Amino acid sequence: MSLPEHLLPYTEPIPVLDHGFVRLVETWGKGDAGEPEAGIIEAARQSTQGSFRGWEKDEKLLSFLFCNKPPHATPFEFAGMVIEVRAPIFVFREWHRHRQQSYNEMSARYAPLPDVNYVPTVERIMMSGGKNKQAGAVTGTEVNLDVEGAEKFRSELIETYGFFQEDYESALAMGIPKELARCGMPVGRYSQMRASTNLRNWLGFLTLRMDPGAQWEIQKYAEAVAYICRSQFPRVMELFDASRN
Amino acid sequence: MSLPEHLLPYTEPIPVLDHGFVRLVETWGKGDAGEPEAGIIEAARQSTQGSFRGWEKDEKLLSFLFCNKPPHATPFEFAGMVIEVRAPIFVFREWHRHRQQSYNEMSARYAPLPDVNYVPTVERIMMSGGKNKQAGAVTGTEVNLDVEGAEKFRSELIETYGFFQEDYESALAMGIPKELARCGMPVGRYSQMRASTNLRNWLGFLTLRMDPGAQWEIQKYAEAVAYICRSQFPRVMELFDASRN
Amino acid sequence: MSLPEHLLPYTEPIPVLDHGFVRLVETWGKGDAGEPEAGIIEAARQSTQGSFRGWEKDEKLLSFLFCNKPPHATPFEFAGMVIEVRAPIFVFREWHRHRQQSYNEMSARYAPLPDVNYVPTVERIMMSGGKNKQAGAVTGTEVNLDVEGAEKFRSELIETYGFFQEDYESALAMGIPKELARCGMPVGRYSQMRASTNLRNWLGFLTLRMDPGAQWEIQKYAEAVAYICRSQFPRVMELFDASRN
Amino acid sequence: MSLPEHLLPYTEPIPVLDHGFVRLVETWGKGDAGEPEAGIIEAARQSTQGSFRGWEKDEKLLSFLFCNKPPHATPFEFAGMVIEVRAPIFVFREWHRHRQQSYNEMSARYAPLPDVNYVPTVERIMMSGGKNKQAGAVTGTEVNLDVEGAEKFRSELIETYGFFQEDYESALAMGIPKELARCGMPVGRYSQMRASTNLRNWLGFLTLRMDPGAQWEIQKYAEAVAYICRSQFPRVMELFDASRN
Repeated sequence: MSLPEHLLPYTEPIPVLDHGFVRLVETWGKGDAGEPEAGIIEAARQSTQGSFRGWEKDEKLLSFLFCNKPPHATPFEFAGMVIEVRAPIFVFREWHRHRQQSYNEMSARYAPLPDVNYVPTVERIMMSGGKNKQAGAVTGTEVNLDVEGAEKFRSELIETYGFFQEDYESALAMGIPKELARCGMPVGRYSQMRASTNLRNWLGFLTLRMDPGAQWEIQKYAEAVAYICRSQFPRVMELFDASRN
Repeated sequence: MSLPEHLLPYTEPIPVLDHGFVRLVETWGKGDAGEPEAGIIEAARQSTQGSFRGWEKDEKLLSFLFCNKPPHATPFEFAGMVIEVRAPIFVFREWHRHRQQSYNEMSARYAPLPDVNYVPTVERIMMSGGKNKQAGAVTGTEVNLDVEGAEKFRSELIETYGFFQEDYESALAMGIPKELARCGMPVGRYSQMRASTNLRNWLGFLTLRMDPGAQWEIQKYAEAVAYICRSQFPRVMELFDASRN
Repeated sequence: MSLPEHLLPYTEPIPVLDHGFVRLVETWGKGDAGEPEAGIIEAARQSTQGSFRGWEKDEKLLSFLFCNKPPHATPFEFAGMVIEVRAPIFVFREWHRHRQQSYNEMSARYAPLPDVNYVPTVERIMMSGGKNKQAGAVTGTEVNLDVEGAEKFRSELIETYGFFQEDYESALAMGIPKELARCGMPVGRYSQMRASTNLRNWLGFLTLRMDPGAQWEIQKYAEAVAYICRSQFPRVMELFDASRN
Repeated sequence: MSLPEHLLPYTEPIPVLDHGFVRLVETWGKGDAGEPEAGIIEAARQSTQGSFRGWEKDEKLLSFLFCNKPPHATPFEFAGMVIEVRAPIFVFREWHRHRQQSYNEMSARYAPLPDVNYVPTVERIMMSGGKNKQAGAVTGTEVNLDVEGAEKFRSELIETYGFFQEDYESALAMGIPKELARCGMPVGRYSQMRASTNLRNWLGFLTLRMDPGAQWEIQKYAEAVAYICRSQFPRVMELFDASRN
């Protein structure tokens, strides 16, 4: 099997939403062109010492491991990725519920967060909650949201961001401690972090966050993570993608 | 040993900050008046089957386990607590970095968060970053913060909260999906959750969050958690408190 | 719904294999007759604050949570159990791969392990590897195992156990350190531990270890754990049992 | 700072005990000669965005992070290592209590374990339990262990190993399932695994297992792991080694 060119380390940030990105920092366990996903395959072979027939073929082995997930998922812990992400705080709030990842995030206690904020497009606003009705309009709202409404919301949101920023700067200038000056900071403001975990956990993250029930914004981040995963672990991701259809 | 009255289940919410609280929901491993902390003690005795001299005395055993922490900390995993907490979002942001706890939090995707927001007192604002200088005023600020400045910040913060709330209600009324209407929501708004973990992890949480370098607000929550711990696990907490002085 | 009598704390050891057992020590989150599984249900309601229609009925709520597992599994972390187990070392070797449980096990470094060993029945030996062919006879073995062979193995195993025990006692009597005297100890010897984790993790354990591909011996332990779970969390386990058929 | 030659990937197995080894498979986060430990340093800088004075110097930053461990330990999660280990089963039994590592071990269910067993040297036997008295001779043993006793134990142990091996081979030849034929297998037999985790967890492992209270055998493995860590993360390990004196 000859490898696609994109197996080379991918370090350009992939843009997400209006000001966010996902960027690959480092990978391990991905092997090389001669033996891609070597870290996973060698770990799996450690258990069986050649006793399983058919496992001499990497493809058959990977497919067996993937399809019998829980009892055979540990080899996927022998590869992993570090990424860098810029996303709105409300996206990080959902992301950080994944307790198997390591995080180092910018802290508004230590440095003022730059004035970069998420404003959803009209198209996005019109999607409502997508496939997740609970996330949509409040129950009992009789109004049908139209483009004008969406645009009104956008302007008001931009105004809210501006209103906070003015107060933030004034508070910092007055000597208000940074950790308090942030009280009014909107959850739509962008923050930045590095995140690291093994491939098993990345696949778990993708399963939950590429799901149509997840909030559309975190779905976009998950898709960027999946794109990077595909460039690093093409055969595993082929199985992953196949399993979702 | 006769037990203090407060060993009885404590379920009244303990008020924290202007609108928050911590409330005990359930405990396990705490034994009864006849044998407090029984869950911990019996787990420890499981390992040694009576082979350690001196361990027939509960106090000596607990003290040994506590002081030799890492190799002997597992018995503290055999007790635990579920609590309910109301706190500002920026406190939850710090809290959720503790990846060994279980969380179920109100979701602004599913229900509008009530208009309850944190406004620090003048006294609190004047503390600046406390013992953590990094969290204080931005470097280069020549101004000395005075009471007037603190009061100005309070009014502006209240205004910011009000500004958002108006837009939030108007957005929800227009049929904007709840998950987007929240973009401008300030991190000073109160949210609510249940949190559960074993005593070993609660002690880890207390160690980090009662530290003078932690943000003052989360310190107040940690003190409320410690208060509840003392009512449930008096002998362990005596050792914990002694270890901090 | 009136509760089955067995919802009362079950503390009698359930016998497993020739000398093992599983015993319930403590449960949390199970609520009471008036509201079984209250810990799980209240945690789930925390997230939604009454915003989901249909969730006012406990059964509908539990069923929703259970069937949408990964995104909605956290409420099952708000209940849990501590158990005590006696099992052969090779069973514990498999059990301890579950990294989300807490363990306190007898230590042969600290106290000589009693001379109690697992001898499989003829019937069990004749099962071969059950549904897991890899665990069966070595490849290339042409012999068909018969009852006589099984009985021969049993006698030889008993002899091996006896041979070690004699050396063990002699080594301990000579003053050989306990931590070394154990070198020859067979993995069929019984050890004992306490194990604790939340219900979400117990369900994960059951899924893997009640599977026909798991070793028959640990299946028997998993069945005993499931039996206890049913007595404590009857409605969750009804969903669990239904999901396996 | 010019880097020591041993910063190059080290892949030769380091011998441990009579037949064991530890071997580096892969590292991440270690940076290169121009910026060693880059993964850790960049993750740390992510949090503070240049707001801490003095942190422009890598050494000062690493030292700050290391010495303020718990609140500032997360950057050490952005580097890690995969290793391969051959060790006696009783060493693996202790090792696997570290629940933050990933493991893939040879399975005696799937392939007969080769006849390689640990026989402690006379010198080792004479150490008794070292600094851990509990691990030494059983209480009440009046005998002083002498060289003759140690040699007697060695011969008996070798005999026990031989006795089992004969039965094992005979059982396998008779068609006894592999997963049962192993019941009599001594915990002194060597097994093999891959283990992977981040540097924060490796440091935790080293702290516990290089301690004089740990069993001498696992201390030897921890020292080999530390040796590899030093070759990959020289500046972090300098801080680690200094902290232990």
